[in-house]
Parts: sequence; structure tokens; C-alpha cells
Amino acid sequence: ILRGAARIEGSRRDIRIVPGLAQRLAEAPDVMRGEETQLAGAGLPAKGRHLVCMPGTHSKWVSVQDGAVAGFGTWPTGELFSVLATHSILKHSLGEHPAPVAADSPFFRQWCERALGEGGDVTSKLFAIRAAGLLQDVQPADAAACLSGLLLGGEIASARRRYGASEAPVVLVASGALATLYGTALGFASLAFRTVDADEAVRAGLVEAARENGMIGGA
Amino acid sequence: ILRGAARIEGSRRDIRIVPGLAQRLAEAPDVMRGEETQLAGAGLPAKGRHLVCMPGTHSKWVSVQDGAVAGFGTWPTGELFSVLATHSILKHSLGEHPAPVAADSPFFRQWCERALGEGGDVTSKLFAIRAAGLLQDVQPADAAACLSGLLLGGEIASARRRYGASEAPVVLVASGALATLYGTALGFASLAFRTVDADEAVRAGLVEAARENGMIGGA
Repeated sequence: ILRGAARIEGSRRDIRIVPGLAQRLAEAPDVMRGEETQLAGAGLPAKGRHLVCMPGTHSKWVSVQDGAVAGFGTWPTGELFSVLATHSILKHSLGEHPAPVAADSPFFRQWCERALGEGGDVTSKLFAIRAAGLLQDVQPADAAACLSGLLLGGEIASARRRYGASEAPVVLVASGALATLYGTALGFASLAFRTVDADEAVRAGLVEAARENGMIGGA
Repeated sequence: ILRGAARIEGSRRDIRIVPGLAQRLAEAPDVMRGEETQLAGAGLPAKGRHLVCMPGTHSKWVSVQDGAVAGFGTWPTGELFSVLATHSILKHSLGEHPAPVAADSPFFRQWCERALGEGGDVTSKLFAIRAAGLLQDVQPADAAACLSGLLLGGEIASARRRYGASEAPVVLVASGALATLYGTALGFASLAFRTVDADEAVRAGLVEAARENGMIGGA
């Protein structure tokens, strides 16, 4: 998936752009622009079926079969958190500057498990976070943990339904706090996983792309 | 639910505020502030189980048993449409001034049925609307129909799972274009329904509230 990178004309340096992926399914159109490089650098085994989770603004889940992408989907979890925290009625619950969510927050766990228990149904529970602030005195930092748990649980439940369970552990390509949150949520879902550092995967993927396109030796 | 309205002091006119409803369930906290008056004016039968759908910015679904509220929930469908159309990546798909959605749009139907088919899972399909614009040349007006269909289908699938099917038709309390859209979506879900005009229900509810609180005769 890294070959055929387009050369940028008019630059003194040799700059190329990896083409990305398009999933031209009538029922599930999707595009990937950047994560394919990370995926190529994630060091996946050449054989077997592997489910890869790359969380972020637009989380990607990729089903890989014998080293080739069999299908992928996008869950805009990070964007939903940001847009709902800033522009929806939940801004009154989360406050102006939502605190970073702690993975060991009981609110994160509770709302993550609620979403997991209802197969990715998130929209029925968004307003309940607001109501919890009114009726149960949930504080802003805890409301942020509720929303984060709800969205991550919804994403994982939904991706699990779409791609089924794989025998191999889910490959979680993430770093830092995001890796901790997703690892914790995958645990609530009883999904085994192993973590690949996202930054290292990007670097490895870029080197691999340069090799595949003959920009450096070793292909 | 209309009795005990609080009197506003210091006004020359007799103004009172109906208290609204709070659902103090640990698992599903919720509040209703205004729709209870509409509900009281919807002319529900005194006997039997009835499921009421009151669509809007924060759609309410109410399960009524023998004339009393047994439970209710909120789906912020209207707000999600507005926030996603204005502030998310979907603004590039829907354009600056999304056109009103036509209930007979094939895009509305297609995306509504997709959401209904996956039990209210909406978040897995939001980015697909963006991808459909890129890969399938879906135009802005049609993208708005996709988002509307997806959100309404998600709401109906989710509410149906929570409250189950009732023997009596769903009571849809709505007016105008919203009544048409929800009626169409309920049809896609094979749910029988009858429509009560929302504006008439509000007026009837307010008159009923005045009677119940002894402000006018006839209680």
C-alpha cells in the first residue's frame, strides 16, 4: 500500500506522497489518508487475521488478512468529543476547559460499560450526561470522563460487531494518554490487545515507504 | 403531572411554572422541561400502554402506562444534526446552508435504513457520509438527507430497543416538516403510528395545566 507514491514536482528535494486508501463499498464508503503509513510500520505478522485499532480524531479500525487490508472503518470519536464538549448542551456539564480524562475514573468505566452493553448506541445516553450533572451532582471533570467513556465504549462495541472477534489480540497503535484510555476500555470489553507505539509506527512506516519507492536502499 | 405549578411572585398577572419531570434512575438519569405539558395535551387514552415520540432538538420518547409516565428518554437528534452540520468535518459535505431534507429523498431512506439495521449505531457511519461525498459524488443537499436519515433511524432503533414495541401505534407529537420526516422514518422501521399536532397539544396542555391549578374553571 506504500508503492506508487506521487512525486512532488518543482521541489529541490525528492518529496513524494503516499496515495492512501479508498474503500469503494456502496454500503460503507471510507477513506484513509495517513494511517496507512502508520499501519505499514506497525510490524504486523505476514500471516493470519489481525484487527488493528488506531485511535484519534478519526479512529480507524482495520481488518488485516495475511498482511493485506481486508476492510476498514472510521469512528470520529475524538472529533465527537471535541465538538460535543465545545458546541452542544454538554458544554454546560463539562465546563469551558475539560480536564484530561483519567483512565482509572469510575465515571469513565461506568459510562464505557454502559455503551459496551448496548452495542455502540451512544446517542441515547448523551443527554443523560447532562441530566446526571443536574440530578446526581456529577462534576465537570467527571462529566468529561462520562463522555469519553461513552464514546470509546461505543466505538469499541461498534467495531467489534462489524469486524467480529479475531483470535489474535487487537493491535492498538497509540501513544501516551490515548493508549492508556483505549487499553483500559478494551479491557472493559474483555478484548485482549497489544500496544504498538504510534510514533514509532509512523517513523517505521515512512522509512518503509521510502524503501518501497526506491528513495533509499534495502527494498 | 401538571399540578403544583409554582407561582411567580411580584407579577401583576397570575403566572405559574409547571414543575417538569425528573427521572432519578442511576442508570438513566433524565429530565423533561416543557414536553410534559405537551404530553398532557396529547389526548392519550386513560388506559393501556402507549409509546409517545416528541421529536425536536432534544427528542423525548415517553412510555405511558394507564395515563401515567412509566419512563422516558432523550435523544438529542436535532442538536446533533445542527452541531455536526456546523462544526464537524461533515460541514464540508453538507455545505454552509444545508437544505431542508425532503422525506422522499432516496438518501434519507437509505441512511435511515442503515441505522435501523444496526440498532441505533450512528457513530460508525458519520464519517461514511463524508467519504460518500468524496467517493460517490454525493451532493450537499443529499448529504444533509443522509445525516438526517442516519440520526432519525438511530433514534428510532434505539428507542424501540429501550421501550419495546407497544400494541398501540406510536403517538407521534409533531407538526409540519418534522412530522413528515419522523412519520416516514417510523414507516421504514415498520412501526405503526398516529400523529397528534404538536402545537395543538401544547395549547391543550396549557389549558389543562391552568384548570388543574385552579386558575380557570372546569377542573
